[in-house]
Amino acid sequence: MPVLPITIKNLIFLFCFQTRNDIKTRMELLIMRIQGEVCHALEKADGDTKFKVERWFRKEGGGGVTCVMQDGTVFEKAGVNVSVVQGNLPAAAAQQMRARRALKVDEGGELAFFAAGVSSVIHPKNPNVPTMHFNYRYFAVVDSDGKETWWFGGGIDLTPMKELVEEDVVHFHKTLKQACDKHDPKYYPDFKKWCDKYFFITHRGESRGVGGIFFDDLDQRNQDDLFKFVTSCAEAVMPSYLPIVEKHKERGYSYSDRQWQLLRRGRYVEFNLVYDRGTKFGLYTPGARIESILMSLPLYAKWEYDHHPAPGSKQEELLSVLKNPRDWV
Amino acid sequence: MPVLPITIKNLIFLFCFQTRNDIKTRMELLIMRIQGEVCHALEKADGDTKFKVERWFRKEGGGGVTCVMQDGTVFEKAGVNVSVVQGNLPAAAAQQMRARRALKVDEGGELAFFAAGVSSVIHPKNPNVPTMHFNYRYFAVVDSDGKETWWFGGGIDLTPMKELVEEDVVHFHKTLKQACDKHDPKYYPDFKKWCDKYFFITHRGESRGVGGIFFDDLDQRNQDDLFKFVTSCAEAVMPSYLPIVEKHKERGYSYSDRQWQLLRRGRYVEFNLVYDRGTKFGLYTPGARIESILMSLPLYAKWEYDHHPAPGSKQEELLSVLKNPRDWV
Repeated sequence: MPVLPITIKNLIFLFCFQTRNDIKTRMELLIMRIQGEVCHALEKADGDTKFKVERWFRKEGGGGVTCVMQDGTVFEKAGVNVSVVQGNLPAAAAQQMRARRALKVDEGGELAFFAAGVSSVIHPKNPNVPTMHFNYRYFAVVDSDGKETWWFGGGIDLTPMKELVEEDVVHFHKTLKQACDKHDPKYYPDFKKWCDKYFFITHRGESRGVGGIFFDDLDQRNQDDLFKFVTSCAEAVMPSYLPIVEKHKERGYSYSDRQWQLLRRGRYVEFNLVYDRGTKFGLYTPGARIESILMSLPLYAKWEYDHHPAPGSKQEELLSVLKNPRDWV
Repeated sequence: MPVLPITIKNLIFLFCFQTRNDIKTRMELLIMRIQGEVCHALEKADGDTKFKVERWFRKEGGGGVTCVMQDGTVFEKAGVNVSVVQGNLPAAAAQQMRARRALKVDEGGELAFFAAGVSSVIHPKNPNVPTMHFNYRYFAVVDSDGKETWWFGGGIDLTPMKELVEEDVVHFHKTLKQACDKHDPKYYPDFKKWCDKYFFITHRGESRGVGGIFFDDLDQRNQDDLFKFVTSCAEAVMPSYLPIVEKHKERGYSYSDRQWQLLRRGRYVEFNLVYDRGTKFGLYTPGARIESILMSLPLYAKWEYDHHPAPGSKQEELLSVLKNPRDWV
């Protein structure tokens, strides 16, 4: 049952009256605010199309709000999902939760958990406009001894679907660097590298795109500082991406540009279904809302056997950057 | 470098002169014969388009022949791949090799292996013609004590992309049953059930298609009997499928039939990238030829957010069969 986007704002007011100052509530309010802001900004950029908004509940605990725009004027498929879920997690899902430091879970065992996050993938129609993904999340788990472990994770990355426009990539990375630098000068360089490593399609030997930032298991400072850092990152999403949308959304493109975009989307699907831990976490979580997880997949994708871009083409140049990640700022 | 299909036949003659009577050579000759026969039959059914044939070598040992027809008159994408590879396998790949009885491999350890198989996915253009997949393979591994273990695996399954045509599915299953019954009356019922279980998209709660047969770890009889059984199965591929192609390939279809076919293909991609052990085995095998593994993916696929077929529609009927596998013979 679709509800109007305005509901989100009303809900935030509702939450504000009840709010406790704990991190779970603060995170929930942050991701709902970001979802509302992103959806409104994208609707404005599209001009014609509204998000379909659905509230959903998970019978095992929690729920979320999924906003999807499909077949718009500017956006072919854009999804912005918020989920706040809790309950018990089977070992297979728990293993997808953390990047570097694995959680101890007995085989066949379960883990009490809380997860609150916003995630989004924006697939524009025009191949001149890159695809963008972001995700910011807070996790807490209780181990068998009753001890709670918490951490933040997240990131944002850009995937050109036609050619490399260097100044766009520089703008994107610079905006992220500014957001990071306010909190720690090491964050941007560390998380930029992590991003290149994470969004790598091993079987293709190429990155999904031109990177951005990615971090996980973030718990090395006090919760308040880290929450502020994540807030800065989430607030930098639209400033890093929207100017690129506006710059290119009316540019013309050819049939072969569209076909190449569809092939690049095929690679996007490969990454998401084969490697992405967020997707796997969703697929392995009992009672997860599959449509909210797989909204990240493009409306159309293509797989051509043994495709190689023409030597010296813009496409070949893009591929060479995907195979050899660069520093942008 | 493309070579003519006739090369395959020449190669078979070449192999015949050198042949030893061992199972590896017999399997290699079988899969090359089947590849040649299937490609010729499909070219005839297409009428206009020829397979592109490529021989490839794997620097770690072995190689194969990949035949792909793309954007034909009848077939949108059809791939028939033969590979005969050997070498050492990392633990991750070894774990994808067997279905029920896992192989003992130390973490980080490797396993000497030999694998010979033919695999194929046929995606027709016309939504009235179902997609078909088959794969027959022989594996041998040598454990750390120097003991060789061998087994056969394989299967074939049908995926309607428009609606359920019951008599087609019955024909398909009957042909497979006849091939199985010549060897053991228990094979068809057992392997039909296994097929329904294997080609199940857990996160969607639906099967990939209307099944067929699937088996793995087959070593409970002498090699000669099992080789003959696999031969019967491989020879039944075209008789089970071609009549369905011929019956429907000239039928008309609508724009919405095509869109529904693309959505079903999206599910096909989900199965292959998330669950298929053959695909994972390929992705985890060092030096594997990715294009030969991912030729199974359709030329085009689509993901629409939260799509539901209209109540009482042919599409809804098909979905209900995918959610509740039936007995067909």
